[in-house]
Amino acid sequence: MTRQQFLAWRMRPFLAGVSLAGVLGTANGAEAQALKDVQTPDTPLVLKAQGSFFVGGEKADQTEVELGNLGPGGHITVNQMYVRFMVPQDGAGNVPVIMVHGATLTGKSWETTPDGRMGWDEYFVRKRHPVYVPDQVGRGRSGFNQAVYNDARAGLAPAANQAVWLRFSDESVWPNFRFGARAGDPFADTQFPVAAIGELSKQAVPDISFGFPQPNPNWKALADLAGQLKGAVLMGHSQSGSFPLEAALLNPTAAKGLVLVEPGRCPEYTAEQIKTLATVPILVVFGDHRDNPTGLPALPTWQQRFEMCQGMIGRLKAIGGRAEMLAPPDRGIRGNSHMIMQDKNNLQIADLILQWIEEKARTSPGAKK
Amino acid sequence: MTRQQFLAWRMRPFLAGVSLAGVLGTANGAEAQALKDVQTPDTPLVLKAQGSFFVGGEKADQTEVELGNLGPGGHITVNQMYVRFMVPQDGAGNVPVIMVHGATLTGKSWETTPDGRMGWDEYFVRKRHPVYVPDQVGRGRSGFNQAVYNDARAGLAPAANQAVWLRFSDESVWPNFRFGARAGDPFADTQFPVAAIGELSKQAVPDISFGFPQPNPNWKALADLAGQLKGAVLMGHSQSGSFPLEAALLNPTAAKGLVLVEPGRCPEYTAEQIKTLATVPILVVFGDHRDNPTGLPALPTWQQRFEMCQGMIGRLKAIGGRAEMLAPPDRGIRGNSHMIMQDKNNLQIADLILQWIEEKARTSPGAKK
Repeated sequence: MTRQQFLAWRMRPFLAGVSLAGVLGTANGAEAQALKDVQTPDTPLVLKAQGSFFVGGEKADQTEVELGNLGPGGHITVNQMYVRFMVPQDGAGNVPVIMVHGATLTGKSWETTPDGRMGWDEYFVRKRHPVYVPDQVGRGRSGFNQAVYNDARAGLAPAANQAVWLRFSDESVWPNFRFGARAGDPFADTQFPVAAIGELSKQAVPDISFGFPQPNPNWKALADLAGQLKGAVLMGHSQSGSFPLEAALLNPTAAKGLVLVEPGRCPEYTAEQIKTLATVPILVVFGDHRDNPTGLPALPTWQQRFEMCQGMIGRLKAIGGRAEMLAPPDRGIRGNSHMIMQDKNNLQIADLILQWIEEKARTSPGAKK
Repeated sequence: MTRQQFLAWRMRPFLAGVSLAGVLGTANGAEAQALKDVQTPDTPLVLKAQGSFFVGGEKADQTEVELGNLGPGGHITVNQMYVRFMVPQDGAGNVPVIMVHGATLTGKSWETTPDGRMGWDEYFVRKRHPVYVPDQVGRGRSGFNQAVYNDARAGLAPAANQAVWLRFSDESVWPNFRFGARAGDPFADTQFPVAAIGELSKQAVPDISFGFPQPNPNWKALADLAGQLKGAVLMGHSQSGSFPLEAALLNPTAAKGLVLVEPGRCPEYTAEQIKTLATVPILVVFGDHRDNPTGLPALPTWQQRFEMCQGMIGRLKAIGGRAEMLAPPDRGIRGNSHMIMQDKNNLQIADLILQWIEEKARTSPGAKK
C-alpha cells in the first residue's frame, strides 16, 4: 500500500456518508447551488472587446429527411468552429491565447470552475492576454452534421452508419481524471473541488469527434484562427492536447507557443515534422497521480502519456527545439488532477504557464507585462 | 404586385450576380472575414463579474453501449441548462435580463451579429442590466441525451425511436425569417445584414427539442433561474417566445417582466392561467413583412402569429393585465426581420425594449438609469 492509498483508505470512514451523492454530485440542491456559489472578483474586469464569431465551415446539400422533414431539401453549413473571445483593455501587444477543451466537453471547461471560482479564460485576460475559447467542431455551439441520424431514423440508412456518441460516466471520471482511485474516494491531497463534482458532470456533452475522418477538421480551424490573429499561443487539453501540434504543423509561423495541458497523446511525428515543431516553443503540463489506473481498459495511464510526451520533448531538444515539461509535483505542488484548469490551485498553475509564455513564447517585443 | 414585391423585383438584376453565393453566403472568404469583421466598441466594457454555470439537471443511469462503449455503464447528467452571464460594474439594483434563443440556434443569437456588430447581450449590459444567456436544454453547451442514438446504432433499439433533429436550410430562412420573399432576393428595405447571411448559417445547430415531452424542461429551468436571480425579465425568441409565459406560470413572482420577441406562438391559455399572467408586465415584439409566406407549408405566417398574440394581449388587458404589442412598423421603422436582434437597427429596437423595461417592468425602486 502506497502512502497515497493509505491516506485514501484512512479517509474512507469519513467519506462513507457521501457514497452515491458523493460519486455523482447531488442533482437536487446542486442545481440551486450553482449560481449561488459563483464568486464575484474583488476588482472589475475591463474589456476592450468581447463577443463571438466562427472559423471555417463548408456547405452541405441535404434532403428534406436529413433536415428533419419541416421543409424541402437545401443547404446548411457544417464543420464551422464557434469561438468566444475577450480582449483586455490594457493588453495591446500581448500574444492572444486560444484555449481548446477536451473530449465530451466544451469551451465551458475554461470558464467558471465547478465550485464557482474564476476560470482560466478570465484569469488570462486579467493577465492582459486576449483569450479565444472555441467549441470543437462537432460539439456545443459549433453544432454537428445530423444528416445520417435523420436518414437512419427514416430507414434510409443503416443505424450502424451513425457515428458513436462518447460520454464518460460520473463514476469513470474519478479514476480517469485522477480525482481518486475509485469513484467517491478522493485522493487525500486532491486539488479537484470534489464537493462540486456534480457541476463537472453537467459540463459534459456527447462527443461525436472520435468518428471524424482524418485530418480532424479542428486542426485546420485552429491553424486558421491563429493565422487570423496574426499569431497566438495555442493551448489544448486532453483529447485536444495534440491539436496545437497539428495546427502548428499547418501554420508554424502563426504558432507563437504551444501549451499541451494533460495531452491524451504526443504523436510519433516524422523527422520532418519534428524539425518543423522544433521551431515553436512548446510546454507540456501534467499533474499528479499519473500512475493511477484509468479504469477504462482501452486507455493507457497518464504516466504512459507523460512518458510519450517526454519522448517527443527529447526528440525536439535533440535538434535544438525549445520544448519542456511542467510537472507541478516536481516543484512540490501535489494533488493536481486531469482537470487542472478547474483544480483549487488552478490560478497557481496558470501563473506557471503565464510565466512560461512571458519568457519563452514568441511575444511581441513591445508587449505590456 | 405590392410595392414591396415591386421593389424586390426591380432589384433582381442587381442581385443576379449573387445567386448561389448570395443565398448561402460564401463558405470560402466568409470564414476569413468573420473575425476580421468583428467591430471593437469605442469605450471599454466594465464588468463586475462574468462567467457561466448550470441550472437544473438530473441523473440518468446508462449502459456501456449508451455511453459509447469506452467503459462500463454508469450515470451521467441530462437536462441541465448552460447559462453564460455578464454583470455590469454599475448595474446595482437593475433587473437582470435572461435572453433565450429560438429553434436550431443557441445563445450565440444574442452575441456579436453575423456582420460583426454588438449583440444585445453586451448592449443590455452597457445599459446597466445583468444579462444571462442560456443554451436551451438539449442544445449547444447544455448537451443532450445521446442514449437512444447509441442504442439504435448497436441494433438494440429501432432507429425510429430516435428523436428527429431539425435544421432550417439556408434557402428556407429567407422567406421564413423574412429577409426576402425568396432565397437570394432580399426585401428592398430589409434590416437584416444579408451580405453576412453565411455567418447566420454557421450559428445553426441540430435541434432535438421538438421531440421533448411536455412540459418542456426549459420552462422549469428558466423559472428556477429567474427565482435564483430573485427576479428577472425573461426574454424569449421565436420557438422560445412563449417560454417566458410558461416560466411565469411556474414562478409568477420571479417574473419581473416578459419580452416575447417574434414568438412562434402565444398559447391559448385557460382563464386561470391568463389571470396569473395578468399580474406580469408583458411586451410582445414583431417586425415587418409579417404576411410573407414562410415557405414551410406546416408553418403559419408571422402575421397569423402576430394576431394570435394580439388575441392574448386582448384577453390580458380585459382583466387588467399590463400586456402590449411593440410593432416597429407602426412607428415608421420598416424592414425588421425575424432575427430582429441581429438586424442592422438592432440597437434601435433594443432601446425601445429597454425603455419599456425601465417604465413597465417591476424593477427595484433604487435602480440606476
